[in-house]
Amino acid sequence: MDATPLDSLATPAAVVDLDRVEANLRRVADYAREHGLRWRPHTKTHKTAELTALQLQAGASGVTVATPREAEVMATVADDVLLAYPPVGAARLARLMALPRHVRLTVALDSREALEGVSRAAHEAGREVGVLVELDMGMRRVGVQSPEDAVSLARAVSSAHGVRLRGVIFYPGHVRAPRAEQGPVLREQSSRLGTVLDALSAAGLKPEVVSGGSTPTLWRSHEVAGLTEIRPGINVLNDRNSTFVGACEWRECAYSVLATVVSTAVPGQVVIDAGSKALAKEEGLDPAGGYGALLDRPEVLVRGLSEEHGLLDVSTTPWRPRIGERVRVVPNHVCASVNLHERLHVLRGDGGVATWSVAARGW
Amino acid sequence: MDATPLDSLATPAAVVDLDRVEANLRRVADYAREHGLRWRPHTKTHKTAELTALQLQAGASGVTVATPREAEVMATVADDVLLAYPPVGAARLARLMALPRHVRLTVALDSREALEGVSRAAHEAGREVGVLVELDMGMRRVGVQSPEDAVSLARAVSSAHGVRLRGVIFYPGHVRAPRAEQGPVLREQSSRLGTVLDALSAAGLKPEVVSGGSTPTLWRSHEVAGLTEIRPGINVLNDRNSTFVGACEWRECAYSVLATVVSTAVPGQVVIDAGSKALAKEEGLDPAGGYGALLDRPEVLVRGLSEEHGLLDVSTTPWRPRIGERVRVVPNHVCASVNLHERLHVLRGDGGVATWSVAARGW
Repeated sequence: MDATPLDSLATPAAVVDLDRVEANLRRVADYAREHGLRWRPHTKTHKTAELTALQLQAGASGVTVATPREAEVMATVADDVLLAYPPVGAARLARLMALPRHVRLTVALDSREALEGVSRAAHEAGREVGVLVELDMGMRRVGVQSPEDAVSLARAVSSAHGVRLRGVIFYPGHVRAPRAEQGPVLREQSSRLGTVLDALSAAGLKPEVVSGGSTPTLWRSHEVAGLTEIRPGINVLNDRNSTFVGACEWRECAYSVLATVVSTAVPGQVVIDAGSKALAKEEGLDPAGGYGALLDRPEVLVRGLSEEHGLLDVSTTPWRPRIGERVRVVPNHVCASVNLHERLHVLRGDGGVATWSVAARGW
Repeated sequence: MDATPLDSLATPAAVVDLDRVEANLRRVADYAREHGLRWRPHTKTHKTAELTALQLQAGASGVTVATPREAEVMATVADDVLLAYPPVGAARLARLMALPRHVRLTVALDSREALEGVSRAAHEAGREVGVLVELDMGMRRVGVQSPEDAVSLARAVSSAHGVRLRGVIFYPGHVRAPRAEQGPVLREQSSRLGTVLDALSAAGLKPEVVSGGSTPTLWRSHEVAGLTEIRPGINVLNDRNSTFVGACEWRECAYSVLATVVSTAVPGQVVIDAGSKALAKEEGLDPAGGYGALLDRPEVLVRGLSEEHGLLDVSTTPWRPRIGERVRVVPNHVCASVNLHERLHVLRGDGGVATWSVAARGW
């Protein structure tokens, strides 16, 4: 927990504003409480045990993870872990079964093969693993394709050893429209989900858990009929994309990469030492383009990225920083940027209060 | 140096084919020798001390780095280090000056501010640091903009304390055309470079080192008149982009990410457990799109990436893998992928021979 004030950090450095984190946590906890939804944040965004602990203190009912390492790290502070990822492969299963016995483990899956693997592993390990049947609600990534397939797989779960059917799960990752325009797609989602839930109930397999939600759809999750749980990840830190879709205001962005100006030789451009290996080179949702924007000057975009160079477009501003000056960049996609850093420097104002290890990086 | 055979690796895993690495090293070493060019590979591609040692054994005259950590790690095996990056900022300078005394350090810079910083730091540390004046040869990232500015900065270097003018440097990173089409841009580069070299010679500042070269232009580096040194990075491992530009054949790709099939629920698609956090979500040069292709089935593209999901497009092939089956993916950009892994699993055939730590990740 050694802390370093902002001015003395070597750059590039990943920086977290703790006041903003706490405000973001309060806002989502209040929303979930108001609408009777359980809040199970996805920890892949920050990959730290410390921020998971703050989420649990703020009212999260458990955590979501995608990898064995995330499960292992978060199990040091959480006793209810959902692996929202197919539990396929001997190494993955062995590590899941080796989680502490007091941890209530649930997994998502969409195939008989995955079910057979986890059932056998759980049975051999002498533990009960919860299962959520994964539904494809339009993202076309994973998930069973029809209500009939959902019923069939749920029935197989309910009769397999070592596992217990807990419900269904989906991820509306295809919904990237601005918040104000999500009405039609959310109504369509409610309707599709309703069909599946009806089919399961008719088969005597009424789900206890209906887990959905993402950061872009976060504040309209209550419009999806039947939902019991939301799993936003990005929301705790936010980023340029979540601002663009209206899931947060710019002042709610709690993550940025501190960088130093290293060259101003090319006219109309400023080069900083945060490149694709610090910010991640991910196309954003904003049609203005760029890979990020300055926290304190959001009109200045990161127009280009090499591995260790970020190119700021200053053609639209009179601001001309000197070489050696520091800036903070909010990336398009916070999860991808955090994953490039070993540690997060946690600040209140400009003062350091802690350093968190991004301990769940890798697999 | 514990080694694990391919079949028993947990996925996703970064895998290096040592036979191919050795062939790639021989080919570039032969090329450099044939054309009287020094070969100073950029180690940002692999970030391992072990592969740097192999490059030096194969005839590299020193190494190129971009970050302090790369300099520190490579200095454990190399005694001639070029920081091809502006040495700006107190922390960066302090770490460079703390490199072992026997290491011959050279830096690239394009500003008086950077020169003043490194001159003061070198003078105080009692060491001599070589300087290359960075030229912008058309990439528009860093580098002085005119022959007059090159002469002016070179003159300032030659009269500063603690530093010694060694020559000039540029990076032709804007040349991404296929090898066969690079003639005109290389002729233009020769002409622009010639003007700068003439101006420096006329000012009594004839450069001893003229450092250039990239992987896309690698095999035509000898067409750039005046060049004394090449700095290819990607070439040692290669990737989908370097194949596309004709810098290598597909069979010279020595790096891949081993992945497991985790879902086949969506028709026409196979989901693997290598996503953007294992492959890097970087747009490629190939107009066919995608983020990578299967090593053994290059017609199968990674069409989409989430953080832990890779979506293989199998609409163009009769191949239908089962859940649990393993594949190897060659990413678009190897440097970005390697940087996401803690270690590289080194194989001959399917047998593990070593594990290398990606020790120079981070800064």
